[in-house]
Amino acid sequence: MKTIRTAFFLSDRTGITAETLGHSLLGQFPNTQFKYMSVPFIQSEDKARRAVDMIDQVAGEDGRRPLLFCTVVDDKMTAILSKSQGLMLDIFGTFTTAIENELGERSSTVSGHGHGIANIHNYHQRIDAMHYALDNDDGVTAKGYDKADVILVGVSRCGKTPTCIYLALQYGLYAANYPLVEDDLNNLTLPDFLQPHRKKLYGLTIEPPRLRQIRAERRPEGKYATQEQCEWEVKTAERLFKREQIRCVDTTHKSIEEISTTILSDTGVTRRFF
Amino acid sequence: MKTIRTAFFLSDRTGITAETLGHSLLGQFPNTQFKYMSVPFIQSEDKARRAVDMIDQVAGEDGRRPLLFCTVVDDKMTAILSKSQGLMLDIFGTFTTAIENELGERSSTVSGHGHGIANIHNYHQRIDAMHYALDNDDGVTAKGYDKADVILVGVSRCGKTPTCIYLALQYGLYAANYPLVEDDLNNLTLPDFLQPHRKKLYGLTIEPPRLRQIRAERRPEGKYATQEQCEWEVKTAERLFKREQIRCVDTTHKSIEEISTTILSDTGVTRRFF
Repeated sequence: MKTIRTAFFLSDRTGITAETLGHSLLGQFPNTQFKYMSVPFIQSEDKARRAVDMIDQVAGEDGRRPLLFCTVVDDKMTAILSKSQGLMLDIFGTFTTAIENELGERSSTVSGHGHGIANIHNYHQRIDAMHYALDNDDGVTAKGYDKADVILVGVSRCGKTPTCIYLALQYGLYAANYPLVEDDLNNLTLPDFLQPHRKKLYGLTIEPPRLRQIRAERRPEGKYATQEQCEWEVKTAERLFKREQIRCVDTTHKSIEEISTTILSDTGVTRRFF
Repeated sequence: MKTIRTAFFLSDRTGITAETLGHSLLGQFPNTQFKYMSVPFIQSEDKARRAVDMIDQVAGEDGRRPLLFCTVVDDKMTAILSKSQGLMLDIFGTFTTAIENELGERSSTVSGHGHGIANIHNYHQRIDAMHYALDNDDGVTAKGYDKADVILVGVSRCGKTPTCIYLALQYGLYAANYPLVEDDLNNLTLPDFLQPHRKKLYGLTIEPPRLRQIRAERRPEGKYATQEQCEWEVKTAERLFKREQIRCVDTTHKSIEEISTTILSDTGVTRRFF
């Protein structure tokens, strides 16, 4: 049986940075089972003390001290949290001194730069790109393709929509998508309105058994989710990608984060912000 | 004039953890201007050496050494990267030893736990929740409300859709939304089909000048984006929230990350995974 340990994410803002790093680090310890607790918006000493009470209570219940992934900027608050029974992993404190020395600049103690609207221009770009992805989803219109940074092509339910949304949110990119329909596959050609945008096309493919499973959850009736149909569509789409020299990635075992990063690497499309 | 420094994000997978932490840390240094470069998928010594070449070239061009936010797990690759002219900030290495000692377990050196499909169940939950958000966007149907964890209510373009999508992607939550229409506002009542779901409702509001600006970008013609209309809608929606005792948050100066975390804090809705 795996040992169970509790990890706290402590933050003066959303807690997303602490959670992101904490998950990445703890993912390297597959023999321990983790329980997670997030305490965001620790913006007062009172709130910090209440977090300490929670940590100490969990320490008592677990019989082992919790791990504390902490991104609280204010030293006073961090000092209070450090007095708890948890193991303090002070993420900001650990690196800030090295960066201060390197830059010759003292760090600002203002919190909230990580996931707030630090850069209003970038933030609007993300939201605009997300609305663009929704407006240009599933080939409903070809009007927006001029503005597209990338146009994902593939059979129905191979992961185009979630990937487009992620590309928008994370990188501010205008990502449209076009689902290959039976006519395209029968003729082994792209529709005419995609021709002017050939350089923006990028293919997604998927193993037929996985596609069948996804489709069956969504629409089990008819030929849509049958083995034959899924195999035929995927094989034909891959032939079409090859014939038209469209690069593509297999999404079967990849997350939308991995698919998106792969597209950026493969195409050289420049993100709109960092 | 601000000093310009380059920051590299070095990763054996997507680079998202390195970017997230790097941005949070560098956000504390407003007097330096940063250029960013991401080198993901460093999975071979050859790729590590090519990254070193890039770093050293930038160091020469900048006349100052770049900052390296590194989440590469493999020691051999990290050692190669450390020989570059950059300032190595070894994010994983720094915390892994402390966690190993605490857990009494050696860390696995397998990369890719952070943003891959480490937990297939959680990953499907995210994607399913995202499709749910799209299917239950903008009040197109009330059918999905039974399944909703939260239903966001507010006037058109106050931030409901991006927030629902973020709640799905980050927390796996089923988030629907309903846009208050003129009838609802005129009658100062919620539509009947929302009544059974009162406990799931959460309001979004926004300052009228900001709403006007957003609407004007989208649809400048007609009364939709006029000052009078925006003021009337927002004021009336806020009266409706008060009368119906619906908690709400002002989205004007908040990112979707902050809005989402605030909703979780306010409602006590439990995320579906960590």
